[in-house]
Amino acid sequence: MKFGRPRGTRDFLPDEMKVRRIILDTVRKSFELHGFEEMDTPALELWEVLATKGGDEVERQIYKFQDKGERWLGLRFDLTVPLARVVANTPDLIKPFKRYNISKVWRYEEPQSGRFREFVQADIDIVGAPRVEADLECVSTAVDALRALGLGDFEVKVNNRKILEGMVEGLQLGEGGMAKVFRALDRLDKVGEDGVAKELTELGLPEDKIARILEFTHHRGEEALDFVGKELASSKTASEGVSELKRLQELSSAYGLDSAFCIDFSLVRGLDYYTGPVFEIKTRTTQIGSLGGGGRYDRLIEKFGGAPTHATGISLGVERLYEVLMDKIRACGRAGGTEVFVANVNEEVAAEAVRVCRELIARGISAEPDIMGRKLGRQLEYAEKKGIPYVLIVGPEEVKCGRFKLRSMAAKEETVADIEGIAKAVSGSIPR
Amino acid sequence: MKFGRPRGTRDFLPDEMKVRRIILDTVRKSFELHGFEEMDTPALELWEVLATKGGDEVERQIYKFQDKGERWLGLRFDLTVPLARVVANTPDLIKPFKRYNISKVWRYEEPQSGRFREFVQADIDIVGAPRVEADLECVSTAVDALRALGLGDFEVKVNNRKILEGMVEGLQLGEGGMAKVFRALDRLDKVGEDGVAKELTELGLPEDKIARILEFTHHRGEEALDFVGKELASSKTASEGVSELKRLQELSSAYGLDSAFCIDFSLVRGLDYYTGPVFEIKTRTTQIGSLGGGGRYDRLIEKFGGAPTHATGISLGVERLYEVLMDKIRACGRAGGTEVFVANVNEEVAAEAVRVCRELIARGISAEPDIMGRKLGRQLEYAEKKGIPYVLIVGPEEVKCGRFKLRSMAAKEETVADIEGIAKAVSGSIPR
Repeated sequence: MKFGRPRGTRDFLPDEMKVRRIILDTVRKSFELHGFEEMDTPALELWEVLATKGGDEVERQIYKFQDKGERWLGLRFDLTVPLARVVANTPDLIKPFKRYNISKVWRYEEPQSGRFREFVQADIDIVGAPRVEADLECVSTAVDALRALGLGDFEVKVNNRKILEGMVEGLQLGEGGMAKVFRALDRLDKVGEDGVAKELTELGLPEDKIARILEFTHHRGEEALDFVGKELASSKTASEGVSELKRLQELSSAYGLDSAFCIDFSLVRGLDYYTGPVFEIKTRTTQIGSLGGGGRYDRLIEKFGGAPTHATGISLGVERLYEVLMDKIRACGRAGGTEVFVANVNEEVAAEAVRVCRELIARGISAEPDIMGRKLGRQLEYAEKKGIPYVLIVGPEEVKCGRFKLRSMAAKEETVADIEGIAKAVSGSIPR
Repeated sequence: MKFGRPRGTRDFLPDEMKVRRIILDTVRKSFELHGFEEMDTPALELWEVLATKGGDEVERQIYKFQDKGERWLGLRFDLTVPLARVVANTPDLIKPFKRYNISKVWRYEEPQSGRFREFVQADIDIVGAPRVEADLECVSTAVDALRALGLGDFEVKVNNRKILEGMVEGLQLGEGGMAKVFRALDRLDKVGEDGVAKELTELGLPEDKIARILEFTHHRGEEALDFVGKELASSKTASEGVSELKRLQELSSAYGLDSAFCIDFSLVRGLDYYTGPVFEIKTRTTQIGSLGGGGRYDRLIEKFGGAPTHATGISLGVERLYEVLMDKIRACGRAGGTEVFVANVNEEVAAEAVRVCRELIARGISAEPDIMGRKLGRQLEYAEKKGIPYVLIVGPEEVKCGRFKLRSMAAKEETVADIEGIAKAVSGSIPR
């Protein structure tokens, strides 16, 4: 009898994990270069914490259970809720507080291509900074991480919740109605204008208002801001939103985002807690969907009992990056693993081979000896199968004179050198 | 209202996380240098998988719950069970299969000093290698990782389950009795000889047998093997165990373990599934307890439906390492974080400061601009409070001539240079 895994979860064998590790390390490096610092929180949270951000849909997706002390717990479904809890409990954090976290989260959703129940998010957030400079810092850091992964040219869709709010100002929407309108609009890409119009009609919006909302989404780029600025001039909220976006646009080139920004008034970003600029990042070079997104959420931390605190952040979807980069990174052969297999010609010199191996390791070269008592031929077969690029051969003669044969498996070449020479020949020669 | 965390879990703010990151990266690096490759498995496993290794005590410690489809799941309580599941399901893995995994596991235990309900284990295992060379490879890799962390001189306690089995051979112990005897013996350090004798009496062992078992534990080091070899010469199992340990001892110096090994016949290692050599690693330089341990478990993988497969491994306790190294690493100041804060003298040049910042980042230097619109004095205060080692000051003059003032916060010195010069001055000057 064999055993499976829970639906929507995966094992990553070494070949796959090496690719993931390159992605995780590259993203981490970019985040740190921009001055974000790592924070970690438990996978388990108290249920009341997870329910605070909530929304029915989110609650349905949480793995929720009682521990043996009958306390209700859940697995975190994102990295923002734990951040908000920590910030609310730690009023003396130096602001702006720039933290990153690259970790697993869990959602009980129907698994489908590219969607899993256990997956990794890479989040950067800035707490305590009210200006658009903080939003830009997050976007540019995220884009730099994607650039470092070789993902080419980017489009950053931008909108502002304040403009969306201005668009529906004065409509009689009732309790939670605004969120419902936004969610309908968010589905424009999927259901088209007719679909959105139908949903908005069902929400009780009159035909002329629906037409006006859809009209906004036809305007893109710089002229869009002028159009909306005029149309919604009477809304204080919308006007604030427009000037924030104008400022964003002005500063974008300093933040290395040049022509990346693309105003899109249909961009909502599902979650209900955004309060200002919202973003979504795509590549221009491929047809793949969103690589990440986020925005400003200035009212979330107070929900967790903290003082009112500005906050903004971006989340990159590591599973999407993995999907996109898997083949590319594998093709580069930058896969790590053992560099030198130290073979012995017979059992008599096996211990010597182990010593040689340790000499290489001490010089920072990844090496392994035979631990199976195999004949030389079988040892070489193993190195070949594993794709280990070099084999060093240890026999009684070699031990005596301290010089060893190094075979490059790809080039089928052999050199003879002492340990120092071998370390030099090997290091730097392997793309890692 | 503020919110807490589940008992036995922790948040790691950046200052703490930097220390953990150094530990995690150092251990990972050592594992990779020895040719172990990373594998990852889900935090969630099917209940029947977790129960397979089981034991009542372990089952009591598992976070177990039903998902929304009423499937019983649990959080993994170690990294060995997932490995066994994967190996059983993947018969074509190239052997020996050397994998590492540094990940969180969960156990519902009473939290106490150094014991948590969510914690990190760092595991290396070798699958498909029957010889003691594989055990040695694991031990030496683990010890090298601890050395890389600066943990000095080590003692590796060694025993062999086969010898323990030989010791109780012929006793009428009944179902599960052997495991109970081993568990009593395992508590020697805690309850002393009288305590163990009492427990063994309760298990129905006659006085002379108890005295004999305790007598074995008085023998240490090399003479212990000779003693046991003679005493248990009639037991085929024990004799095998003795020759394995002799071979271990012979090879230990080649594996860089020299005088580290210390035979201890009271060493059991709680879990019931070990079948051969078992290990426990301590430092000789401090009084802290075990830093890790493990052993051979040749019959576990077949329990998961695989072919009979040799396996051995070591697990390092990352929380223990964190406890021991926290103060030491902090004192070294090797804490990472932003290297250069790029200040602006006024809003007019704020965008230029962002550009300069990006130039440093492009040269691999961690840098951040002001994103708060603060006056220069407040910017410098922030850099000081955050402990950022360098501040670069951007004013209109500096922008014009392309040369900037770099202030070293610790030395209170200033230099003036262009970006290239500043990058050179900064890089390499900070211990990271």
